[in-house]
Amino acid sequence: MTTERYAIGIDLGGTNLKIGTVGETGLTAFRQTSLRERTVDEVMNLVEREARSFAQQTTGTCVGVGFGVPGIVDVKQGVLVRAPNLPGWQDVAVQQLLAEKLQQRVEVDNDANFAALGEASFGAGRDIPNFVMLTLGTGIGGGIILNGKVWHGDRGFAGEVGHTVIEIDGATCTCGGRGCWDEYGASRAFRYLVPKLSPDGQKVFRQWAGVESVTPEDIAKLADRGDAIALKLWQMYGRVLGIGIHNLINVLGVTTFVIGGGIAAAFNHFVEAARSEVASRSYPANTQGLKILKATLGPQAGVIGAGYKLL
Amino acid sequence: MTTERYAIGIDLGGTNLKIGTVGETGLTAFRQTSLRERTVDEVMNLVEREARSFAQQTTGTCVGVGFGVPGIVDVKQGVLVRAPNLPGWQDVAVQQLLAEKLQQRVEVDNDANFAALGEASFGAGRDIPNFVMLTLGTGIGGGIILNGKVWHGDRGFAGEVGHTVIEIDGATCTCGGRGCWDEYGASRAFRYLVPKLSPDGQKVFRQWAGVESVTPEDIAKLADRGDAIALKLWQMYGRVLGIGIHNLINVLGVTTFVIGGGIAAAFNHFVEAARSEVASRSYPANTQGLKILKATLGPQAGVIGAGYKLL
Repeated sequence: MTTERYAIGIDLGGTNLKIGTVGETGLTAFRQTSLRERTVDEVMNLVEREARSFAQQTTGTCVGVGFGVPGIVDVKQGVLVRAPNLPGWQDVAVQQLLAEKLQQRVEVDNDANFAALGEASFGAGRDIPNFVMLTLGTGIGGGIILNGKVWHGDRGFAGEVGHTVIEIDGATCTCGGRGCWDEYGASRAFRYLVPKLSPDGQKVFRQWAGVESVTPEDIAKLADRGDAIALKLWQMYGRVLGIGIHNLINVLGVTTFVIGGGIAAAFNHFVEAARSEVASRSYPANTQGLKILKATLGPQAGVIGAGYKLL
Repeated sequence: MTTERYAIGIDLGGTNLKIGTVGETGLTAFRQTSLRERTVDEVMNLVEREARSFAQQTTGTCVGVGFGVPGIVDVKQGVLVRAPNLPGWQDVAVQQLLAEKLQQRVEVDNDANFAALGEASFGAGRDIPNFVMLTLGTGIGGGIILNGKVWHGDRGFAGEVGHTVIEIDGATCTCGGRGCWDEYGASRAFRYLVPKLSPDGQKVFRQWAGVESVTPEDIAKLADRGDAIALKLWQMYGRVLGIGIHNLINVLGVTTFVIGGGIAAAFNHFVEAARSEVASRSYPANTQGLKILKATLGPQAGVIGAGYKLL
């Protein structure tokens, strides 16, 4: 009898902690808990407890722990450099901290990179050597897979695609920069898109609930029911998404894109507009074979990729 | 006695044909001829004659020919898909054509990619595993070196960085797109920058010779002599260059950039502005270790890279 190998995957977000066990066939257990803890000590203790609890419940040999964190990660040093959604977390040696607590091999990476690796292992990117995963939510997370592996760049900061500039003197972004794709292609996009609707369209939009309180998910549901203004907004959104995809095609020469995150709920409403925006801006040769795919692992992609990294 | 191995490197441009022999220590012979020929047949016959002439003059063993061409190249198929500066050249099987003529191993790539490989082998990028070479001239050529090799993407179209959008509804580009970095960061940049000068500055600029006839090289010379308007223009230029570099840092996580092409004549006048623009838009961690270097191989980089590819 052989003992099955498994890894523990952890995906730390700004509001949730997700954890699971990953074996050769994919995810075998999963739990999500909301994150009330805030300080490094509190959160790391919670991560330790959750990981121990999962290890006790799982038969087989644990080969290690993959730990995805929401921010800029120096993968060589195993350090979380900066995490916009975890105030106070700066230059935290998360890999060393967790390895000492658990006495296990620990691999650390950015959450978007692990989500991309998850989709590469058991999701929409399976058997596709080169692709970019875009996680569309509060911001645009990017994970770049080249030759089947996450591409990290010199220190681990590759894939911060949301902070590429698509408007030289555009809106100020949360990163401090201006005109970032994040401002036009993530949940804040509608602040930019709504004023471009016709006056009547803008009136309808205001009737929904006011610009600030209508979420992309709300607009997706309206579009699902066939609302013309909502459908129009998603077409406009697709256009901006397509500009960013066009840029990535031109830099990376990659022709497959996997779209995840909350905004992917509206995938069918924006994907054709994104595709035709790319086509309208690119040499035909560049877009031959273009694939814009919906992610298939949903909110578990990050856990799956984190575990897969160790297998 | 051992016979030294060498390769022939060829760099086909829109106006010139450059050819040379490359050995283990670098370039050993070089010739540039102006290109009056235009059709595929005429140019390929010229290339054959030049290559044969170089082979006859060189002692040692020729291991093959690297052939750099100015356009989008499908490197797997060895096909020049499109060449904006060689009208009529479309879907030309340049690799097969030249291999049959010369009965030699032939490697084909985009000219900017071979220039990057040249700088990686014997130039400013030597011993730097990851960098982007930017060739600043009529357009912005890009060559991406990852782990010491040219990164081609799925088919060979990576590095078309000049056609990334930095202004959503910006000026129409030669590629048919809009708001491409090419429009703001290559020789056409001054059309965009001059109107942003003060009225007095614009008047001075017009006195030089009119917008269309002042070349970047002219403005570089004026700046060398300390002309305040020229210096100001190069600072403005550096800012736009920095935006594109910032974007590449955020996608690729690469922190070294090698700047070549005609506009690099003004390198010292724009590099600090580019660097501070990157810093102003990026997380400090992203720009730690940022190196913006001037290319060292000049107009011979493409020939050197083309030859080096075979060694």
